[in-house]
Amino acid sequence: MAIRLFITGGTFDKDYDEIHGRPYFHDTHIHEMLRLGRCRLEVAVRTLMMVDSLEMTAADRELILQNCRQAAEERIVITHGTDTMAETARVLGEAGLAKTIVLTGAMVPYAFGSSDGLFNLGSALSFVQALPHGVFLAMNGHHFTWDNVAKNRSGGFFERLR
Amino acid sequence: MAIRLFITGGTFDKDYDEIHGRPYFHDTHIHEMLRLGRCRLEVAVRTLMMVDSLEMTAADRELILQNCRQAAEERIVITHGTDTMAETARVLGEAGLAKTIVLTGAMVPYAFGSSDGLFNLGSALSFVQALPHGVFLAMNGHHFTWDNVAKNRSGGFFERLR
Amino acid sequence: MAIRLFITGGTFDKDYDEIHGRPYFHDTHIHEMLRLGRCRLEVAVRTLMMVDSLEMTAADRELILQNCRQAAEERIVITHGTDTMAETARVLGEAGLAKTIVLTGAMVPYAFGSSDGLFNLGSALSFVQALPHGVFLAMNGHHFTWDNVAKNRSGGFFERLR
Amino acid sequence: MAIRLFITGGTFDKDYDEIHGRPYFHDTHIHEMLRLGRCRLEVAVRTLMMVDSLEMTAADRELILQNCRQAAEERIVITHGTDTMAETARVLGEAGLAKTIVLTGAMVPYAFGSSDGLFNLGSALSFVQALPHGVFLAMNGHHFTWDNVAKNRSGGFFERLR
Repeated sequence: MAIRLFITGGTFDKDYDEIHGRPYFHDTHIHEMLRLGRCRLEVAVRTLMMVDSLEMTAADRELILQNCRQAAEERIVITHGTDTMAETARVLGEAGLAKTIVLTGAMVPYAFGSSDGLFNLGSALSFVQALPHGVFLAMNGHHFTWDNVAKNRSGGFFERLR
Repeated sequence: MAIRLFITGGTFDKDYDEIHGRPYFHDTHIHEMLRLGRCRLEVAVRTLMMVDSLEMTAADRELILQNCRQAAEERIVITHGTDTMAETARVLGEAGLAKTIVLTGAMVPYAFGSSDGLFNLGSALSFVQALPHGVFLAMNGHHFTWDNVAKNRSGGFFERLR
Repeated sequence: MAIRLFITGGTFDKDYDEIHGRPYFHDTHIHEMLRLGRCRLEVAVRTLMMVDSLEMTAADRELILQNCRQAAEERIVITHGTDTMAETARVLGEAGLAKTIVLTGAMVPYAFGSSDGLFNLGSALSFVQALPHGVFLAMNGHHFTWDNVAKNRSGGFFERLR
Repeated sequence: MAIRLFITGGTFDKDYDEIHGRPYFHDTHIHEMLRLGRCRLEVAVRTLMMVDSLEMTAADRELILQNCRQAAEERIVITHGTDTMAETARVLGEAGLAKTIVLTGAMVPYAFGSSDGLFNLGSALSFVQALPHGVFLAMNGHHFTWDNVAKNRSGGFFERLR
């Protein structure tokens, strides 16, 4: 079962810029993470963008949707910043594609040691295989449908709206 | 959705004994791993045993089966050594309980840095929520049914029998 | 041989604030690092401040100097942000105390995984035992005297002035 | 100041063999560790052997001594298993070379996450620059002279004999 994996950036893939003392985007860690997970799924990775999700535009979301629509694979995982993950999920969900799409991310960069990234990646790759068509978020061990999820910003986790 | 998590030991939970220079069992890392994964599932953890799966006896497997049968939860994850994980899955599978049971483990101890444990835990906790009743192994990103899986010992991964 | 260890903050001790997505000061990691190093030196730790060294004031430097002067110990290690480490070293050096004082820090926070912090701490604690009275920086495996060192900001390392 | 670094194996450089579930020697981690420490010393690395120090023979120790004698550098660091580190130090110490030689090692493999290796490497590279001619062990933040040190095996640390 082939899986398409789209990279869009987010905390997941941030590195530490030791010259300027701040997080920044260097390159995706997804290949290292798949290797660490001894993952043997047939996963095709493509980086669409490398942005902080707070800076993601409507055009960026349209690009993600186009890529989901055109992907040959029926099962798609998208790594995404947590701040606007629910917003992108809404754009994808309203498009109603006949595919299973799972967005995931991380609260702490994978490169910073105490990250939830590897847990979330294992979770997203599993949900995408087992869930029916639809658009979902995989965070905190849960899966959420695109029309019933929000980030609790002060708590730093995701929850159902109702 | 409440999930029961049974600990049986395995590489997953080995530590390094720096006095004798070898891996050993100290205590489970599952609570730290759930915290790292920012997991917010309702998970009830119980340690059944702490053994290398090569030393697991028929009585041990019977004990695991009894605990699965008696658990109030319909969804159960079991951490287990990889060497005889498929054997324990067979015992559980043949019992035909009306529950979803997912076994998982790790090739490298969680405490040793480059472990697949966190990825596998995220994977197992997701599959157990999304799969129907049955007994499964979650390893290498895949899920396997209990009657169609074997560890490839020389390669260090799991594969279907047919 | 008792050693005094003063904490002043710096990259060394930064954590990642997962709610706001940026490095911040939480608490010092020095105790965990000494434990990790299996350090059995007699080290007395005291946190003087917890600041980014770019925000360190003349009054802060005066406070550090006072603490060095009043310390019962003849050997003192100071953890410090790298950006103005040389400046603080100059203040201490010009005071000409009859003590061995070694400043050290890190380019990457200890909590972020790929840090030079543990290496530098081992280095500073060793130099402070073996060097004569004076004020030194221990970075990049080297020791520098306070009046002959500068941070190469674009390169992210320390070097002699002449 | 050029430093010679001889690798002889020991816990320091053990990896985890995930096929057989035990520590083993793969390749030295010293280059990665020097990089992590942002070390800018002029260090020339040479692997002499890759053995558990309990299996080190008199011939092995003779080989180490020959290499120390013939090295162009006056300052030498040797990574070594902790179990017989003091024994090798004695062989080197009795030879009375006009060099500064520092042996170090680790209680936990560098690759296993919670290692003292990076701390000890920083320590050894600093002591070797600052100490006079002689043979020393750098462990637990201390330096010991070759004729006054023993490993406390039950405690897992080094101490003076008198």
